[in-house]
Amino acid sequence: MTFLYKADPIRGAEWAELFARKMPELPFRIWPDVGDPRDVRYLAAWQPPEDLATRFPNLEVLFSTGAGTDQFDFSMIPATLPVVRMVESGIIGGMVEYVTLAVLSLHREWRTYLDQQREQNWKVHRVQTASSRRVGVLGLGVLARAVLESLNGFGFSCAGWSRSPQQIEDVECHAGADGLQQFLARTDILICLLPLTEGTRGILSNTLFDKLPRGAAVINVGRGGHLVQEDLLQALDEGQLSSAILDVCEPEPLPQDHPFWTHPKVMLTPHIASMTQPESAVEAMIDNLCRHQVGLPMIGLVDRARGY
Amino acid sequence: MTFLYKADPIRGAEWAELFARKMPELPFRIWPDVGDPRDVRYLAAWQPPEDLATRFPNLEVLFSTGAGTDQFDFSMIPATLPVVRMVESGIIGGMVEYVTLAVLSLHREWRTYLDQQREQNWKVHRVQTASSRRVGVLGLGVLARAVLESLNGFGFSCAGWSRSPQQIEDVECHAGADGLQQFLARTDILICLLPLTEGTRGILSNTLFDKLPRGAAVINVGRGGHLVQEDLLQALDEGQLSSAILDVCEPEPLPQDHPFWTHPKVMLTPHIASMTQPESAVEAMIDNLCRHQVGLPMIGLVDRARGY
Repeated sequence: MTFLYKADPIRGAEWAELFARKMPELPFRIWPDVGDPRDVRYLAAWQPPEDLATRFPNLEVLFSTGAGTDQFDFSMIPATLPVVRMVESGIIGGMVEYVTLAVLSLHREWRTYLDQQREQNWKVHRVQTASSRRVGVLGLGVLARAVLESLNGFGFSCAGWSRSPQQIEDVECHAGADGLQQFLARTDILICLLPLTEGTRGILSNTLFDKLPRGAAVINVGRGGHLVQEDLLQALDEGQLSSAILDVCEPEPLPQDHPFWTHPKVMLTPHIASMTQPESAVEAMIDNLCRHQVGLPMIGLVDRARGY
Repeated sequence: MTFLYKADPIRGAEWAELFARKMPELPFRIWPDVGDPRDVRYLAAWQPPEDLATRFPNLEVLFSTGAGTDQFDFSMIPATLPVVRMVESGIIGGMVEYVTLAVLSLHREWRTYLDQQREQNWKVHRVQTASSRRVGVLGLGVLARAVLESLNGFGFSCAGWSRSPQQIEDVECHAGADGLQQFLARTDILICLLPLTEGTRGILSNTLFDKLPRGAAVINVGRGGHLVQEDLLQALDEGQLSSAILDVCEPEPLPQDHPFWTHPKVMLTPHIASMTQPESAVEAMIDNLCRHQVGLPMIGLVDRARGY
């Protein structure tokens, strides 16, 4: 019975050490050193090998090493193989930090003050109260809920949108196609934390931007595929949107000549909002292995019909 | 019985409207329209007039319109006149936002990513966990406590230092001259939230910087007078400090040719971390007037011997 890891080898070495300490009875191997393929029961991968089904005939679970599984080609993965997303405190903490930082930097006009410093301009802009700033999160999964809890702590006016109705304390919850319009109309700072599925690809388009109040800002920490890039540029240039903070792009890295690099209203980070932390990721992984071995449902198990 | 306001007149007009609504029986006047000086019982000022004692013979309380009173010349203020600092939720909320933003921007290397964007450089820097980042606050007053509560929420390793011993849940508290050394030795991000007194003027000097771990960062949201400017420049240039975020300077505005404007390791904002919000400031003011009228101690009453 082998646990096989196939992602960044530097992190892999850290995982190996943690597994040796916390679950020494389970042989841990790092790709391409697979050993006997028939022994591989668990595979943790960012990208599984294409011949997954034939190469590892006794595979019991495929774990994504990321918070999403949109990088997987599900047509290559046996329909009966359980696929599990990464749900761990390191990813959640990183996302809460990044989104809080992004929202506060918009709220407190950090970029304006950086520009003013360059111009040696000492000019005070009056502070708007957090309660008058309406923040909205697209998606109400584990990450979105943690982000909303943090933003609520500052007194922002918080709302969320999801496909099916949800209830969260101190968050105005909207749902479905009907709820989306109402949700957008009251949102000054929009955060995309949706999973990338066929239903959400390209959701950040002019159709959506036009429903936001004029001058709204957008933060995309979902996936690059959520955004229609030319629509964002148009909305920024026409003033419908005032700024965008993008942690994800399509493709990544963003090509050298892409207009996002130099656009004065775009802040770009290289997909660093949230990363698995080896310590907490291995803890979560071991918890799930235990759950699987005793027949309990694993945390983060993907519903393939839903796509997340 | 008149309440006289002597500070920014735009805010004064907002205060007037709020007072008319919430305490209509109290005549509210805005400097220089003082009316009969003998009627002035309460003065809210950023800078009181120099002839305060003779001009308003029946003055009962002097309120500062700011969180500090270091802008007052106490030699011109009768020793028996109660002086009250502004303690109100708007100031507290603003400070929590600013310091959280500043700490998160250092923690998540926001400035590095802005620079990388300018260089069209897609480069990931691994995220350090919040628990491994040691944040320390100089001063443990109302603002510092609120800031520490916010930072604790992200899981930072939090400590505080004050003149006399204090206890705060989940905060490693140090006190006095002996405690300062220990506090500094464990602090990666230092936040100054002290009142400016003769004892704290110039505290942010090389003597202090040298006791921090090499590469520490400093955030000054106290007063410009806390900082020895040439020492900061030297510590930054020698690498003892990695960066500084300064919201306060001496003098303000900072002169055009000052090296802080262009220093690559200095981020400068024009004293905007925290501002009184008219709505909550007037609420706090009216609460204090009621307390004064029934003989209760006012919130924010200054101890002149202590200096805050």
